[in-house]
Amino acid sequence: MSLNIVRYEYQDRHRWGVLRKDRVIEVPGDFATTGDFLRANTIESLRGLDGTGLALGEIRLLSPITRNQQFVCQGANYRQHMIESGMDPDAKAYNMIFTKASSCIVAADSEVIQPKSVRFLDYEIELGLVIRRRIDARVRVTDQNLHEFVAGIVIVNDYSARDVQIPQMQFYKGKSFRTFGPVGPYLTLLDASSIGALKDLQLKLTVNGELRQQDSTRNLVYGPAETLTELSGVHDFDAGDLLATGTPSGCALSIPSPTKQKIGALLPEAKKWAIFMKVQAQRTQYLKAGDIVEASIRSADGAIDLGRQRNRIITES
Amino acid sequence: MSLNIVRYEYQDRHRWGVLRKDRVIEVPGDFATTGDFLRANTIESLRGLDGTGLALGEIRLLSPITRNQQFVCQGANYRQHMIESGMDPDAKAYNMIFTKASSCIVAADSEVIQPKSVRFLDYEIELGLVIRRRIDARVRVTDQNLHEFVAGIVIVNDYSARDVQIPQMQFYKGKSFRTFGPVGPYLTLLDASSIGALKDLQLKLTVNGELRQQDSTRNLVYGPAETLTELSGVHDFDAGDLLATGTPSGCALSIPSPTKQKIGALLPEAKKWAIFMKVQAQRTQYLKAGDIVEASIRSADGAIDLGRQRNRIITES
Repeated sequence: MSLNIVRYEYQDRHRWGVLRKDRVIEVPGDFATTGDFLRANTIESLRGLDGTGLALGEIRLLSPITRNQQFVCQGANYRQHMIESGMDPDAKAYNMIFTKASSCIVAADSEVIQPKSVRFLDYEIELGLVIRRRIDARVRVTDQNLHEFVAGIVIVNDYSARDVQIPQMQFYKGKSFRTFGPVGPYLTLLDASSIGALKDLQLKLTVNGELRQQDSTRNLVYGPAETLTELSGVHDFDAGDLLATGTPSGCALSIPSPTKQKIGALLPEAKKWAIFMKVQAQRTQYLKAGDIVEASIRSADGAIDLGRQRNRIITES
Repeated sequence: MSLNIVRYEYQDRHRWGVLRKDRVIEVPGDFATTGDFLRANTIESLRGLDGTGLALGEIRLLSPITRNQQFVCQGANYRQHMIESGMDPDAKAYNMIFTKASSCIVAADSEVIQPKSVRFLDYEIELGLVIRRRIDARVRVTDQNLHEFVAGIVIVNDYSARDVQIPQMQFYKGKSFRTFGPVGPYLTLLDASSIGALKDLQLKLTVNGELRQQDSTRNLVYGPAETLTELSGVHDFDAGDLLATGTPSGCALSIPSPTKQKIGALLPEAKKWAIFMKVQAQRTQYLKAGDIVEASIRSADGAIDLGRQRNRIITES
């Protein structure tokens, strides 16, 4: 069984709580970071908490991932998204990895600020894995032992400034602007009996009520076990670190066909990017001030439900 | 005047010290992170420390940057390196930014481990800027106020697995393997009177005594002030964070000419990368087990001297 955890502000203090229907039971203790919380609590101990708790309306939810944690991301990791990008998901050439600055992490209901210099603001719903424990050497992660390495899951929206990310080649800057990483609302803890549900969660994102992204994690190309196996051979993880697993098709970004990409490569850089910008300018799907982006992730039967994100887009003042 | 600081292990404890000739005067207090050290000490207070100290031979130097700090990097930021990569440094199209996982940070004299799966291991000497204080909003950094934002400088060697970094497009993974980030040996603190020296420091890297990289920071394309101004509008920094400013020409990596890059873009991906690998295989400059890489950064008059790195390359066991 899964268990939904929230981090929240109440009476000027940051606390952690267990969500029970629409009430929150406070977890005793002070946990400054997500890592501290996960090291001190287990899904079994949290399930046993008593109390009537607080109504959700009395508290302000925060991101369940704190800003000291790593924010590692997979790119191009859903079958349809790869096909539309001119890549062959069955070839599995490589597992694309980049990072976002963790200062972009905000609560799930935050306003998202479009910087003045950014023209093409895009959304990317993603399933985020929350690491359970320190990993400082190669480990072999399998579907059978995955629960030893993954404590739970969260909704991530990997907001992206396409006019920065794409022409500048390295994704970090265009994806790291402040507020570009709403996480939560819930940290859905999983145990050995429930972690298998990871394999078929429904992702759904709307803009002003219009459906833009909808897919299932069954279409992930590089799954959690093989990704953690590979990355454990590269760098360390700590409890509470976040690994976002990539977004399905349906973003505002228009990726040129492979043929157009080859023609583009022959042009001078400035010309190539001028054409890219012109094509993007015709995409009415890019976000603008006042737009409402809503994102949810859940199992088909509703037994696992990561909650709902809701972001209003505003422009930088 | 600059002041050289070291972090070291002595009698199973981690400490900080001021380097005075070849002796180290311990700084009183416990500072778990580089940020903690910088928040608690100033160059003036450190200069006034008394004591005979310990000989360098009695202690083991550690990286002066701890692994909780951000490790942000600039790419293609020296004039000659950009020209050889087919880019125009005067066009200043964009300031390329990526990150390394901070678990790759090791001491300046560490062995560097070539992972079994990595064929093309390369070196990159870089000047690292160490951030003085929290930055959580846009600031205008100039040569005049740079010392308010930069506490000091370090040598960084941005070791890179070219066969991972280049074909996988996003640089993070190929540059984040454990031991791929020797930092130090010294944290050279700068004040308002000495920070101008940043503009003309001599970088030098040898492999087995053979000169491979030599350049001056006067050839940096995006300087520290403009880079911090831009990035302050993207994400937060904290005291002790590391910004590596890019490497000069002279790496083992052979970058195809712009014409060859255009031809390569017309090929199927697999064919293009097979040719890339074949070209790299002919480069005898790539590192192999037993090679000794030495790196130094200093001012021409020797008044500022960041010390010397020395890494022996070993293969993963």
